[in-house]
Amino acid sequence: MNTSDKLAQQIQFLVESEKLKAVFRRNSPVNNERRENSAEHSWSLAIMAIVLAGHANGQPDLLRVLKMVLIHDIVEIDAGDTDAFDAAGNATKADRENRAAERIFNLLPAVQAAEYRGLWQEFESGVSPEAVFANALDRLLPLIQNFYNGGKSWREHGVTSQQSLNRSRPIGDGSSALWDYARSLVTEAQQRNFYSPANKTPDI
Amino acid sequence: MNTSDKLAQQIQFLVESEKLKAVFRRNSPVNNERRENSAEHSWSLAIMAIVLAGHANGQPDLLRVLKMVLIHDIVEIDAGDTDAFDAAGNATKADRENRAAERIFNLLPAVQAAEYRGLWQEFESGVSPEAVFANALDRLLPLIQNFYNGGKSWREHGVTSQQSLNRSRPIGDGSSALWDYARSLVTEAQQRNFYSPANKTPDI
Repeated sequence: MNTSDKLAQQIQFLVESEKLKAVFRRNSPVNNERRENSAEHSWSLAIMAIVLAGHANGQPDLLRVLKMVLIHDIVEIDAGDTDAFDAAGNATKADRENRAAERIFNLLPAVQAAEYRGLWQEFESGVSPEAVFANALDRLLPLIQNFYNGGKSWREHGVTSQQSLNRSRPIGDGSSALWDYARSLVTEAQQRNFYSPANKTPDI
Repeated sequence: MNTSDKLAQQIQFLVESEKLKAVFRRNSPVNNERRENSAEHSWSLAIMAIVLAGHANGQPDLLRVLKMVLIHDIVEIDAGDTDAFDAAGNATKADRENRAAERIFNLLPAVQAAEYRGLWQEFESGVSPEAVFANALDRLLPLIQNFYNGGKSWREHGVTSQQSLNRSRPIGDGSSALWDYARSLVTEAQQRNFYSPANKTPDI
């Protein structure tokens, strides 16, 4: 394959990636009424990765963490964002996302398609040091956003402090310091009545 | 400074960075009517950096390019987005952005504040291999977006093909292959009448 064929495939993937800006998550950016899209969410995870890398347990390779968080939600272009507390959606999530990965990453030249699909699967498996840290950041960000929005999304969706704490546990695998911080946020959010008093959403 | 003091500063910076999601650019994402915000724009540049790194002239360090594009627009939180074709805005841009950099990066612990401020200045200077490539991507992205949106933003703001070509020239410093591609896009956009026939915006 010559350079321009390769470049044409890469541009096609990049144009496709623009659609992630039209996939909306349940939570909002801090001090912003609208819902957040998965592209700007991914930017936040990347910024967090560079700023918070020094707190990671183990020694994840920062470049791999960055690649991983930048592409971790690309499959949502076809599969949509499946909220953590959506039980029905989560039952079909893996299948929908696998089909999406097959289509979207294969827009790229073969070597890159294999690399990014591998990074996505690694993120989903959550085992390598890079994936463990990336998953920790993916759980920490909505906790921070919901806290700084006064718990609006928690109360709207009936999420209790216990559910929020359970959802946050993977943070501890990625970073002991961030887990201490996350627990202190949950405690403070409880004291300020940011959570829903009753569980109105399925446990996860 | 102990870990928790450092972490508190880092979190403060990350919460502040959320405001970039409320800074809007003049162009739109592909196939999307709304204007793009600078956070999702920065995500696109980072995705482009990893996908297109192999086309860079020279050997920019990819991790430095990624850090640079991820933070390159943070100053817009205070200074706003200054459009390339806004002459009055560009006269005061450097001063506004320097003050913003002083405030925002200094939310971080001193070592990181110095690193990110340095990367931002390096991007603005556009001299190092990383900065040259990052600037090339920053010019290529709106060209692609405007092309795939049928030139809507070009005609709305009275931008001619010659102005678009001039604006795109830094792409050639960053990558010969991407410059060939950019010129072919401008030519095709001309043929499809995507540009404004008359110049209604100041030359840059």
